[in-house]
Amino acid sequence: MAYRVIEGGITAAKGFRASGVHCGIKKQNLDLAIIVSDVPGKCALAYTQNKMRAAPIEVMMKKDPKMLQALVVNSGNANALTGSKGLYDAREMCALTAEALNLSEDLVGVASTGVISRFLPMHKISGGVAKAASELGRGREADQLAAKAIMTTDTRMKEAACEVTLKDGTIVTIGGITKGSGMIAPSMKVLHATTLSFITTDAVLAKNANAKWQDMMDTSFNMISVDGDQSTNDVSMIIANGKAGGPPVDNDPAFWEGVRYVAQSLAKQIVIDGEGATKLIEVHVRDAKSSREARSAARSIISSSLVKTAIFGADPNFGRILAALGNSDASFKLDEVKLMVSDDDISVTLFQKGAPTMVPASQDELNARKILSGKKVIIDLWLGVGHSVGEAWGCDLTYDYVKINADYTT
Amino acid sequence: MAYRVIEGGITAAKGFRASGVHCGIKKQNLDLAIIVSDVPGKCALAYTQNKMRAAPIEVMMKKDPKMLQALVVNSGNANALTGSKGLYDAREMCALTAEALNLSEDLVGVASTGVISRFLPMHKISGGVAKAASELGRGREADQLAAKAIMTTDTRMKEAACEVTLKDGTIVTIGGITKGSGMIAPSMKVLHATTLSFITTDAVLAKNANAKWQDMMDTSFNMISVDGDQSTNDVSMIIANGKAGGPPVDNDPAFWEGVRYVAQSLAKQIVIDGEGATKLIEVHVRDAKSSREARSAARSIISSSLVKTAIFGADPNFGRILAALGNSDASFKLDEVKLMVSDDDISVTLFQKGAPTMVPASQDELNARKILSGKKVIIDLWLGVGHSVGEAWGCDLTYDYVKINADYTT
Repeated sequence: MAYRVIEGGITAAKGFRASGVHCGIKKQNLDLAIIVSDVPGKCALAYTQNKMRAAPIEVMMKKDPKMLQALVVNSGNANALTGSKGLYDAREMCALTAEALNLSEDLVGVASTGVISRFLPMHKISGGVAKAASELGRGREADQLAAKAIMTTDTRMKEAACEVTLKDGTIVTIGGITKGSGMIAPSMKVLHATTLSFITTDAVLAKNANAKWQDMMDTSFNMISVDGDQSTNDVSMIIANGKAGGPPVDNDPAFWEGVRYVAQSLAKQIVIDGEGATKLIEVHVRDAKSSREARSAARSIISSSLVKTAIFGADPNFGRILAALGNSDASFKLDEVKLMVSDDDISVTLFQKGAPTMVPASQDELNARKILSGKKVIIDLWLGVGHSVGEAWGCDLTYDYVKINADYTT
Repeated sequence: MAYRVIEGGITAAKGFRASGVHCGIKKQNLDLAIIVSDVPGKCALAYTQNKMRAAPIEVMMKKDPKMLQALVVNSGNANALTGSKGLYDAREMCALTAEALNLSEDLVGVASTGVISRFLPMHKISGGVAKAASELGRGREADQLAAKAIMTTDTRMKEAACEVTLKDGTIVTIGGITKGSGMIAPSMKVLHATTLSFITTDAVLAKNANAKWQDMMDTSFNMISVDGDQSTNDVSMIIANGKAGGPPVDNDPAFWEGVRYVAQSLAKQIVIDGEGATKLIEVHVRDAKSSREARSAARSIISSSLVKTAIFGADPNFGRILAALGNSDASFKLDEVKLMVSDDDISVTLFQKGAPTMVPASQDELNARKILSGKKVIIDLWLGVGHSVGEAWGCDLTYDYVKINADYTT
């Protein structure tokens, strides 16, 4: 592996500080975070493709920044579907933060998450920005305050970090935080990504990293689903401030492998903490015609309510997995399709050569039930039409998902 | 209205008989139905677009019948993902039925619904076909036996019928049955449509009715969703035996209005009986750019897990409805978007001119909660970009949906 996993979060890379405060958007709990770099950093952003874009998404897409130095993020209110007042408020969040940090407004990014279609309480935001700007820090406490301040229905904070040693010996660090538990089915497009995720690095990026960032999205956040509902507020960004020095990493596979690790780790943490989730479902599709088709098949499986409920019930009703494959646009040769479920210890082949292979009431069925009863269920599916692979991550659909969402605003 | 609703089902039209028996595919309950016309009838069929097609779907698509005289349908086992043995078994079901009824095999259709990827118990089917063939009858008892024999997780049988008086005074009758409760998100295509639905009529069809049948699908079964999972087994068909006489109805709007009534009534009965459902959600999209876009928007809303859980919880979290609109491919002018919820008594406008209109803790919010607490929630949404309309029907997502599906095969 090109990277070394380390303990850390949003301030793991050199030159980044962060804070998280409670300003009163939520009744209790932290609800506003600021992340700031000592110097402006090259950035790449990906936004939701939901056409009902939240105000902060509209503001950032219009700004289309190449460089960012600070981010202000609130939770508890999405500032979505709030009309022209919402746009004004999102710009005001940037302006307040720029003023408090003595930066140009152009260098400040904004993101929001929470209830849709309520106006932001700007007097509380204003106080929160001032407080957060005065409490910026580095290290594990600052990391965790920022990670907690962006949470909504999340039950745990989500962060990841790694180090990559470049060929010249320079060690660069990549750290990130994310939030998300429900309304999770991101399909983020660069230039045009409610999961919020922020990745910081002290590596040097010399050029526009949009193409690489899209590739990171397509193999991490865009391959998870909790409930199939793409948010109005999804945004994912990387800021590279160059503070580690060394050569530019634009085309260094080791660096991007590190970024992918952080992005995938954060994405998996979201589905593990999916609303009501009790299990991680990991799907590997192999022998597909193309990467796109492999990802389409994998995503169709983790998105199926029937697959998700069967796995919650540890019911080896694997026909639902194949039905979900049939609903994707991936091509397959049924005679060559093979389906296997496994955990870290055992594997059971359920379907092969066009017919079920698991005999009812056999040891295989007992093993399949044991696998499906665990905390992590791995599904391997071979399509028999090529050599491409794709992975997706999802969670089971449980009573608690219904409970959490039947009574969210009230 | 061009049609008159009558009490009746699959044998309401002249010249049709039916039966339903228990042959042992299920532990108890009826599990095999036969429907037969006195003479061969013109037919039109629509099949699932899931590429993982069940054996009976493959058999019928290959047969591509223009005329049918009998149908044999089993529940409890979908005969899906059963390889070449499954294909053989589906053909054998046609052959057994043809023999029992002394018909050509070409005139017999077959359909199956139930658990995926198990082989049919053909010895039981064989006995069931013989018994069902010997018990054919007309009238309410025969209707209900057939309607019950095709049920799976359905909690009630589903039938509808109407009469249409043609211009020359001929009265034609249209009757139908359907089943479906889970794995419901049909997208059926003529020539290529697990809901099963069978509509019979004694009207005269002179020509191929595929185009009209597709239009019926696109305004009924294809506009419902329980769980977003399109089945491997969906099929919907109409058989017209001409026994009422009178002129051909191929281009008679009154006749097709009657067929649409039966198809929509059956489709709504499916979502009302959706797995775990407690409420019918009816969405009307107006002022859309095209009918296709209007349907796309309506279907996106009834398919959203977050909308479905909010309505289960009677939570007026209407931002989720607009987020679902944003995830469809329908165009809209946000400033002209208007969102209203209503029941049969009261209406509340929730969003208009780009911003929320419902004041928290107001009488409007109380009314919205009252509407959402009822058994039928109507959502009206204006997109402001044209004059096209579309309707879709869904149900709430509840604890019982999870319960039913977490333990289905076992």
